[in-house]
Amino acid sequence: MFIFTLLDYIGAMVFAMSGVLTAAEKRLDLFGAMFIGVVTAIGGGTTRDLLIGVTPVTWLSTWHYLAVIMTGIVVAIIFRQTLNKLRRTMFLFDTIGIGVFTIIGLEKALMIGVHPAVAILMGVTSAVVGGVIRDTLTNEVPLIFKKEIYATACIAGALVYLALRWLGLEAGINQLLTVGVIITIRLLSIRYNWSMPVLTIDSDQK
Amino acid sequence: MFIFTLLDYIGAMVFAMSGVLTAAEKRLDLFGAMFIGVVTAIGGGTTRDLLIGVTPVTWLSTWHYLAVIMTGIVVAIIFRQTLNKLRRTMFLFDTIGIGVFTIIGLEKALMIGVHPAVAILMGVTSAVVGGVIRDTLTNEVPLIFKKEIYATACIAGALVYLALRWLGLEAGINQLLTVGVIITIRLLSIRYNWSMPVLTIDSDQK
Amino acid sequence: MFIFTLLDYIGAMVFAMSGVLTAAEKRLDLFGAMFIGVVTAIGGGTTRDLLIGVTPVTWLSTWHYLAVIMTGIVVAIIFRQTLNKLRRTMFLFDTIGIGVFTIIGLEKALMIGVHPAVAILMGVTSAVVGGVIRDTLTNEVPLIFKKEIYATACIAGALVYLALRWLGLEAGINQLLTVGVIITIRLLSIRYNWSMPVLTIDSDQK
Repeated sequence: MFIFTLLDYIGAMVFAMSGVLTAAEKRLDLFGAMFIGVVTAIGGGTTRDLLIGVTPVTWLSTWHYLAVIMTGIVVAIIFRQTLNKLRRTMFLFDTIGIGVFTIIGLEKALMIGVHPAVAILMGVTSAVVGGVIRDTLTNEVPLIFKKEIYATACIAGALVYLALRWLGLEAGINQLLTVGVIITIRLLSIRYNWSMPVLTIDSDQK
Repeated sequence: MFIFTLLDYIGAMVFAMSGVLTAAEKRLDLFGAMFIGVVTAIGGGTTRDLLIGVTPVTWLSTWHYLAVIMTGIVVAIIFRQTLNKLRRTMFLFDTIGIGVFTIIGLEKALMIGVHPAVAILMGVTSAVVGGVIRDTLTNEVPLIFKKEIYATACIAGALVYLALRWLGLEAGINQLLTVGVIITIRLLSIRYNWSMPVLTIDSDQK
Repeated sequence: MFIFTLLDYIGAMVFAMSGVLTAAEKRLDLFGAMFIGVVTAIGGGTTRDLLIGVTPVTWLSTWHYLAVIMTGIVVAIIFRQTLNKLRRTMFLFDTIGIGVFTIIGLEKALMIGVHPAVAILMGVTSAVVGGVIRDTLTNEVPLIFKKEIYATACIAGALVYLALRWLGLEAGINQLLTVGVIITIRLLSIRYNWSMPVLTIDSDQK
């Protein structure tokens, strides 16, 4: 489906850009920024492909995907000052990215016949692991472990998608609808400052 | 063999719990704790499966394994204060886990026909990589690189297992015996404060 | 080709040694040094093999490779003070390693029929990912993200190799020539203090 492929490319490009901006904040050099950009864009899908046994991994089989990512990287390197100020706008595209990546991961896992619960995990993996690797490589505890309803929006979207799929909704419509659900949850979570409870251990009682 | 599968599940559950406790110490949120819990439990076995080419990786093919891990995570989140005080008891279960994981890794590697030295490496990988990923994601130098006869107990156990296997001992008995050896070495190492020598470089002479 | 296999082994051995020296600087124990040594030596090639779908990964299928790596690790542990003073000499061998690893990765990727741009990426992956994992596990931002024309030398070498290959040069000669190019670029970069530009973001304007 054309729109969906387009959204996938937008997602990869925005993920690559977020990698470059993180690299610039950390004062990495040009190569470091490219490396982090690529890894952020492909990390989630690659991990999913490796786990379910799709090799060579998807993005290796075509130069289009890499070209899209490299375009995102070059644009982000040149316009990094501007993009950094536009983070709120970027954030919307990033949310589209995680929505699309969640559904792609979910669909690919269902295709090899795993249990739906395992498939949801693969959807979330596709969406979040790129960012986790980006933060780990730049020596930070991954952002999504600490704040924001990011992964939770993916899980909720995955559940909606499975339910509508089970009810027989046409795949294309379901995909767009689910991406909409994920975006809505995430925007609401920012607007109303929702977050996951933080775990603590009362060290005094040790 | 029933007992061995049971020990495998216990190992995975305790590894998941240790991930949650580490996440709580680092004040991660609920999703972070779940992510670290899952990764700690499956990291070693997944790495081994990927290296030897078993895909989809083992835990994807059944929802049982994931259910056991999620149970461990939920229990650890609810009872984290209590569990944190029971770390010494947890430690025993954790040792069972590394023992079982070592043997599973060793057996799987031998089955694809690699050299015994390589198989030992796969056994150790199964046992330690989950913890290495857990510590790396929470921005620490992995614990097992710095103290304790943890990996060494795995290597010793793997050697014992190979020797007894070569002598023709029945697999089930050998497995339980080897887990016993690994547990004993680790308990003795704690009791008598054994540790691996730390490497140093005399920086003054640079 | 004998010379090339020899260079591959030298590369793996030197990478393993660099892992041990990093571990000693971080005061890890004997096991930590071994783990980091192995991972540094095999990390790049393993990542490449997994991505292109070569499993069991190459080094699992023979004990020779692991034996060479373990030899490097033992030598580095024993002579770490001396080696630390000889870092400039080590550096030359390390450069041979990245040159050889780049070409091996490139060739392997071309063999499975990917686009040349993707193949270059696989060459660079083979050469640099071992060091990236080494630095991440010891809780540092990877060195190659911050200074030196390291990865750039690999990319330049890969381009030269592809060009000469397209012109029909015999593979063996091309390989040695390309390794020569990579070494020359890297030595010149050290001699004249070349480095990649560092990215910055003007935080004041946020």
